[in-house]
Amino acid sequence: MSEPTVIFLPSGKRGIVNKGTTVLDAARQLSVDLDSVCGGRGICSKCQISPSFGDFSKFGIKSESSSLSHFNKVEMRYQEKRGLKTGRRLGCQVRILSDIVIDVPEESQLHRQVVRKEAEFHKIIMSPAIQLYYVEVQEPDIKIPSGDCERLQEALEAQWKIKNIHICLSVMQSIQNKLRDGNWTLTCAIFRNSQTKSNEVVEIWSGYFDGPIYGVAVDIGSTTLAAHLCDLKTGEVTNSEGMMNPQIKYGEDLMSRVSYAMMNERGAAKMSVAIREGIDNLLSSLCKSSKIPKDTVLELVIVGNPIMHHLILGIDPTELGQAPFALSIADSISMKASDLDINLNNNTQLYILPCIAGHVGADAAAVVLSTSPEESLGTVLVIDVGTNAEILLGNKKGLLACSSPTGPAFEGAQISCGQRAAPGAIENVRIDPQSKIVIFKVIGSELWSNDKNFWPSVEQSGITGICGSGIIEAIAEMRLAGIVDESGLIGSYEQTGSNLCVSDGRTQAFILHKSKDGTKDIIVNNADIRAIQLAKAALFAGAKLLMDEMGVGRVDKIILAGAFGAHISPKHAMVLGMIPDCKLENVVSAGNAAGTGARIALLNKESRNKIELLVKNITKIETAMAEDFQGHFIAASNIPNSSEDFPELKKIISLPNVNFNHRTSKRTKRVQKNSSLDI
Amino acid sequence: MSEPTVIFLPSGKRGIVNKGTTVLDAARQLSVDLDSVCGGRGICSKCQISPSFGDFSKFGIKSESSSLSHFNKVEMRYQEKRGLKTGRRLGCQVRILSDIVIDVPEESQLHRQVVRKEAEFHKIIMSPAIQLYYVEVQEPDIKIPSGDCERLQEALEAQWKIKNIHICLSVMQSIQNKLRDGNWTLTCAIFRNSQTKSNEVVEIWSGYFDGPIYGVAVDIGSTTLAAHLCDLKTGEVTNSEGMMNPQIKYGEDLMSRVSYAMMNERGAAKMSVAIREGIDNLLSSLCKSSKIPKDTVLELVIVGNPIMHHLILGIDPTELGQAPFALSIADSISMKASDLDINLNNNTQLYILPCIAGHVGADAAAVVLSTSPEESLGTVLVIDVGTNAEILLGNKKGLLACSSPTGPAFEGAQISCGQRAAPGAIENVRIDPQSKIVIFKVIGSELWSNDKNFWPSVEQSGITGICGSGIIEAIAEMRLAGIVDESGLIGSYEQTGSNLCVSDGRTQAFILHKSKDGTKDIIVNNADIRAIQLAKAALFAGAKLLMDEMGVGRVDKIILAGAFGAHISPKHAMVLGMIPDCKLENVVSAGNAAGTGARIALLNKESRNKIELLVKNITKIETAMAEDFQGHFIAASNIPNSSEDFPELKKIISLPNVNFNHRTSKRTKRVQKNSSLDI
Repeated sequence: MSEPTVIFLPSGKRGIVNKGTTVLDAARQLSVDLDSVCGGRGICSKCQISPSFGDFSKFGIKSESSSLSHFNKVEMRYQEKRGLKTGRRLGCQVRILSDIVIDVPEESQLHRQVVRKEAEFHKIIMSPAIQLYYVEVQEPDIKIPSGDCERLQEALEAQWKIKNIHICLSVMQSIQNKLRDGNWTLTCAIFRNSQTKSNEVVEIWSGYFDGPIYGVAVDIGSTTLAAHLCDLKTGEVTNSEGMMNPQIKYGEDLMSRVSYAMMNERGAAKMSVAIREGIDNLLSSLCKSSKIPKDTVLELVIVGNPIMHHLILGIDPTELGQAPFALSIADSISMKASDLDINLNNNTQLYILPCIAGHVGADAAAVVLSTSPEESLGTVLVIDVGTNAEILLGNKKGLLACSSPTGPAFEGAQISCGQRAAPGAIENVRIDPQSKIVIFKVIGSELWSNDKNFWPSVEQSGITGICGSGIIEAIAEMRLAGIVDESGLIGSYEQTGSNLCVSDGRTQAFILHKSKDGTKDIIVNNADIRAIQLAKAALFAGAKLLMDEMGVGRVDKIILAGAFGAHISPKHAMVLGMIPDCKLENVVSAGNAAGTGARIALLNKESRNKIELLVKNITKIETAMAEDFQGHFIAASNIPNSSEDFPELKKIISLPNVNFNHRTSKRTKRVQKNSSLDI
Repeated sequence: MSEPTVIFLPSGKRGIVNKGTTVLDAARQLSVDLDSVCGGRGICSKCQISPSFGDFSKFGIKSESSSLSHFNKVEMRYQEKRGLKTGRRLGCQVRILSDIVIDVPEESQLHRQVVRKEAEFHKIIMSPAIQLYYVEVQEPDIKIPSGDCERLQEALEAQWKIKNIHICLSVMQSIQNKLRDGNWTLTCAIFRNSQTKSNEVVEIWSGYFDGPIYGVAVDIGSTTLAAHLCDLKTGEVTNSEGMMNPQIKYGEDLMSRVSYAMMNERGAAKMSVAIREGIDNLLSSLCKSSKIPKDTVLELVIVGNPIMHHLILGIDPTELGQAPFALSIADSISMKASDLDINLNNNTQLYILPCIAGHVGADAAAVVLSTSPEESLGTVLVIDVGTNAEILLGNKKGLLACSSPTGPAFEGAQISCGQRAAPGAIENVRIDPQSKIVIFKVIGSELWSNDKNFWPSVEQSGITGICGSGIIEAIAEMRLAGIVDESGLIGSYEQTGSNLCVSDGRTQAFILHKSKDGTKDIIVNNADIRAIQLAKAALFAGAKLLMDEMGVGRVDKIILAGAFGAHISPKHAMVLGMIPDCKLENVVSAGNAAGTGARIALLNKESRNKIELLVKNITKIETAMAEDFQGHFIAASNIPNSSEDFPELKKIISLPNVNFNHRTSKRTKRVQKNSSLDI
């Protein structure tokens, strides 16, 4: 009788193995993705499989229950003590006797896929840089003296084929007791260091240790720090926590922090200490609220804009505040978290994604990693909107990147009734084009303001202001309702027929919400519109610059990244001319793309090589140097009128042809004068 | 006319180069060892050469002054500002026009040789792991954004062909200022990490920096710490300093420290802190007294016995105090000095030599490195005598090692008038065989005690006791003078005719020095002789065990290592039967061989690979396990009588045939009973 054929599903990998081969060994021979921590000793049960029986004519084999060995002692004991799901077998124990079809369930796959919330994006394939390995170590022999560490290395090489092993100092210090406590068995957490090609034993446990072990993805924003605790086995986010960036006290925005570094002795050093302490505290708090020991966090991935990137590393960011905006270091960085005074495990590994350019940081690289524009056939525009907008454009043929100084208007700053996104802030606005009646929604309530239950639902917060996405909707709706003209001027009651248009000095304002006592009216005035026009013109001009550079007149897809991107209404953004013309259904949000990119780098070590290579090949455009930028900026100041530049917008919307001021030329000049783009 | 032939001396390397090639380039093409820090820019002047002119018929060429280009501007300026020795040229400036013979002076050779004090041993070939490289770095270009670190990497690759570069965090932090201060030039100290194969930029200086940079070789003894500051360019020892091992407070000898670790909570940790602080203080003091900045010390090499090795690493040495004497780690270790709380430069590299076995440490490995028994055709016995003696035996065919528990008698402990080697201690003794008159020398004076100026010369110290080498000479001389018999018994006045033999209870004592008031007589009694007999028997038995294992009856050379080894008189050692029979002229001292081995590892990176490989191939013998050891020990208890075991000794000396006690069998039994060899 011939040797049995084995077919693994879902991979479809097939091959002929020697009769009596265990399923785990067969999987290894055929490079099938079957997990094991204990190396086939029937301890870890990670290698569970489900045989499929029947006549598999499509594979040309019959798979019968007699194709497998009976339950052996190890399986019996496991079944008795911990129970196996019906139909499951331990892959390291069950032997193949004749042709068989084997299902590898999702949870037994080493490189299982983790689904992301944003359904349209790639799943994350688990391939963490740190994994657990159980080993049996030779006892010391007085006749052949060798160190415990050397015998561990020999065991890892013999039992796991792992070579070039480096043992961390704290492991050297604890190996004696742990080996003896574990009766000469250990579980090792091994970090595959792709830079040095060495395999670093970063932590050990006596005997068999099943985890969990953790990694944390950290996104250092100028305003907030966010940390996502991930199980390095399942890839799931176990817990997330955020806090204000403690550097806030040295300056609200990036440029004021650079100024602080320039103007104060040891200013940069103080901010470095602040951010390091902040992250250390955040991670302590995250571990505490997750009820996990800090030393089970074995990896950390950090992303941030170039200034945060430099400050966490202890590098003075002054050079980033002035041309030629030279980074001290652009490449990705691997070190120990303790090098940055972050106290987790002694040997917690730290990876910082590469920066793209002086204004386009590791956070933008993380956005690339999570949105993958380089894999698209069509041209994709990725916009991460914040105080500084990072803009990426590209497809399979290449990627371009720039940043554009949009200023803080999109975050509700510099807006008369503006505020940060928080309960009480207006975030959605609709204006009836005929009646000019305004309805809105505020953060904290799901209801529109004309719902009978709206007022009770906002009783607690009240209506306190308007946030970034709210102001965009408000101005776009005002434009659609004929309250604002192409140049951004608000019409008067006489011009618009709406008594919500009120005089505001030499210009007009529009009342979104009239408070009962008149003290807290939420209005939009012409200065607000001008601020948004400046911001959106900067954003649009950056996108346009990249499109010119790439030689494309339009984009096939727009991805809005960042917390703000998640709340922008694509239609309203397009009405305002924030983003180039595109089919509305092709404008999508990537959510917290920078944080997700950090998580991808944390969970999949190959993604690190990928982004390092990608970043090197991105064409970087410095808006401050681009001659066309100013022109694009001025051209983008107006609110579009569905002209030839916006054919897709024209298909779905017709904008009222109103003009509330005949001195347009003067108006344009004013915008130009105000457009101080020097950051 | 054909292209010129160039011949370099003293290497004799020859080749044909293109006309107009600089001498430095020609040297590089022909792999001639010609130094350069500035990379051929006429700054460093390290590449100075001396052309030789004349008719070199033995080489088949004529070498004429017209064979070289005239002084160019760079050479002129250098000549003017700093001066060139007559006949010297700058190798990077002078061009080869026709056939030429070039002398590379010693100081222009990158791998120059450093001569050692102990003339019979190898010179050290300079090949430090850290070297300086001057580079010109591209200024940042706003159009092609890249980090300062990346441009440094590109410069090092283009100008020095150095790839796989890792830049240390502190360098990332300082590169901005140093690059700009140095007008986009830097000198880099680069560590060639043989483990990771990466080239680590550990320190940078603005512009051209000529050093010096330093390394320190540290020998951690149980009693004393010794540190030798070495110039990493010349290899010379600039300064040395020593101090008591601060662990002394936890126990005088190794085993009492192991006990302390076993009996006290955090006992090992306390001793680790003590030794780390001790070394940190010693190095600070060394830098201070040498008037050099601590951060110019870029490398550290540490050696020590296994217990010191474990304690400096923060590893509990308890396992080393009991069978099977398992090391936690035996292999060599590379890390940063700061990992062990030793504060020099942020990135000072630390290398710890491998341990050979549980009782034969990194100090013994260093002894191998400095004495090279593995290169000898004849069989070499290397003995490093201390509380524990490390014994090595071998030749080109192989090496064996063991340690033997000699106890502290050789250091003057357990001896009635014994003391450490210090002023006032008797270190040499002679006894006239006829008159039995004793003369001696004490530490602190160059004179024998029968010199008329002797007493004034020792007035300050007085005569305080007898040190290890003194007691060996005293007993050996007593044996030669017929005062002691083969079994180690001292004869009485009646038996010897010497009135210096006095009754001492049931046995006799011998007076070496009678003090004026009779209170401070320096004597040798039978208990002293017994202690030395035990110690020398253990030493001899260890050597004999290795000789048996190797199958050799005699050795061709004996190398005595260690401070004690340097003071032992070979003849007296042989008379006592401390060392096996050997031609006296072939018994040599290697001085502080462990310290020298550490220095070799510091100055020559290839020696590290060599010792790592060697150590793995050494056959380790555990005396505690060897069945023959006890037999050898008992057999070696007596003082030899120039029998068949000592033919070489017999040639030069005839020992008096005396026997002061007929109950020899009983005596032997007593020695046996006292020979508690468990450590």
